[in-house]
Amino acid sequence: MRSAGIVYLVGAGPGDPDLITVRGLRCLQQADVLVHDRLVAPELLDEAPSCAMRIDVGKEAGNHRCAQEEINALLVRHAQAGRVVVRLKGGDPFVFGRGAEEALACAAAGVDWEVVPGVTSATSVPARAGIPVTHRGVATSFAVVTGHCLGDDRVDWDALARIDTLLILMGLSRLGAVADLLQAHGRPAETPAAVISRGTLPDERVVVTTLGELVTAVAREGLATPALVVVGEVVKVRETLEGTTRTSRTARPPVPLSAVSLRSLESLLSLG
Amino acid sequence: MRSAGIVYLVGAGPGDPDLITVRGLRCLQQADVLVHDRLVAPELLDEAPSCAMRIDVGKEAGNHRCAQEEINALLVRHAQAGRVVVRLKGGDPFVFGRGAEEALACAAAGVDWEVVPGVTSATSVPARAGIPVTHRGVATSFAVVTGHCLGDDRVDWDALARIDTLLILMGLSRLGAVADLLQAHGRPAETPAAVISRGTLPDERVVVTTLGELVTAVAREGLATPALVVVGEVVKVRETLEGTTRTSRTARPPVPLSAVSLRSLESLLSLG
Repeated sequence: MRSAGIVYLVGAGPGDPDLITVRGLRCLQQADVLVHDRLVAPELLDEAPSCAMRIDVGKEAGNHRCAQEEINALLVRHAQAGRVVVRLKGGDPFVFGRGAEEALACAAAGVDWEVVPGVTSATSVPARAGIPVTHRGVATSFAVVTGHCLGDDRVDWDALARIDTLLILMGLSRLGAVADLLQAHGRPAETPAAVISRGTLPDERVVVTTLGELVTAVAREGLATPALVVVGEVVKVRETLEGTTRTSRTARPPVPLSAVSLRSLESLLSLG
Repeated sequence: MRSAGIVYLVGAGPGDPDLITVRGLRCLQQADVLVHDRLVAPELLDEAPSCAMRIDVGKEAGNHRCAQEEINALLVRHAQAGRVVVRLKGGDPFVFGRGAEEALACAAAGVDWEVVPGVTSATSVPARAGIPVTHRGVATSFAVVTGHCLGDDRVDWDALARIDTLLILMGLSRLGAVADLLQAHGRPAETPAAVISRGTLPDERVVVTTLGELVTAVAREGLATPALVVVGEVVKVRETLEGTTRTSRTARPPVPLSAVSLRSLESLLSLG
């Protein structure tokens, strides 16, 4: 018997379903309503109870299936009806995820909410590709921005160009303009750069190049979205590590998500 | 029967043990040797098999229990003896965690390794305190640095001062110098700022102030380490959200880590 609804804003992590948090998975397994993005792994959608309502509010570039205001209203409406609502978002809900807008909508409506942070793509996608965002003697700071910010006058590209490691989320469509801008602000053309397409997923692809050659290299390889761009000397660490890294492609987790489901255990224990 | 050892570089997340990833937890539950930092939650240490060797290589400021080279050698030695070694680090191993140095040591010794990204404190600690690192119309980029970098000439504080949201990890001891430096580089004294002490833990404390008042406010409250400093307009989002946020303090997870242990299930299934 439930007294009141709640909205859990849950980060799904960068793509690999095993990179969701334990708390995020448990929220998912208790969902009455699951409101999710397009890019969330199917394995995670399957973790919600089979009777849970699943609503895809996924956004593709230039084709927003639902406006943000509609999503906010949806979350509030289901919570007010007494349901456990899980809003599952790629990466972390408060890192370019507009999660705080959803939290504010809940707060304004007097609906309980909680953010369950996730593994952000910004740091984890490079890590799984063998690129640390910081490295002793190489990079002592990093900055994160999206390619969508390109037309936004408030973004200080001059400052961003000077940070040791720059991570650009959703950068593929504006790649040429971003690369030009960073060079115009003094970042040398020979700065190491990498593009990681579909990071942490089985079909991940990594292209290592330089800032000056970014556009040509990406066009040649025909990379798919989503893609993350890394600019900085840390990209060189990958060369030394390459070939020794065990990733999810070569070594599945000791016990995959599908084999040991917390849900199975919870139904045994009648906690579902 | 195991053919060869491996080193898993696992991120424990920001403090709350339920914010470890599913994959990280499973690695932990298969560890023969657990090499951990001082700040890792005791609940996570308990998740390793009871027979696993536990080695605390924790670092306190100014009191490094083990030099990095000793840690590297330790990981390599145990893996070469055929053991499953889990190197458990607070936050994410590749975000100011020196994890890449450990990966490079493994690679140099021909030891298999894998990085299991974690929820970084940089973004999750503010999120759980009601502060998104990005927010529409307020902040379109963020940068991360540590207070320890203060004496490092290569850190471009002028650029960092101009990024919308600045996150300073381990910033408490050098707080005054950092606040002065940011103001010297043009960040106004009235810029909103927050200090989050022991973020995501039951004794978390949050002080909201301004850049100019940071040092006074922190001294008055007597905050404990570890602490993260947030500088930027996003701090104001917390005011609107405050009082409505459900955190781990007021609402424990539906099913806490201690109640549903994957380990229990794995031993039932004889996968342990």
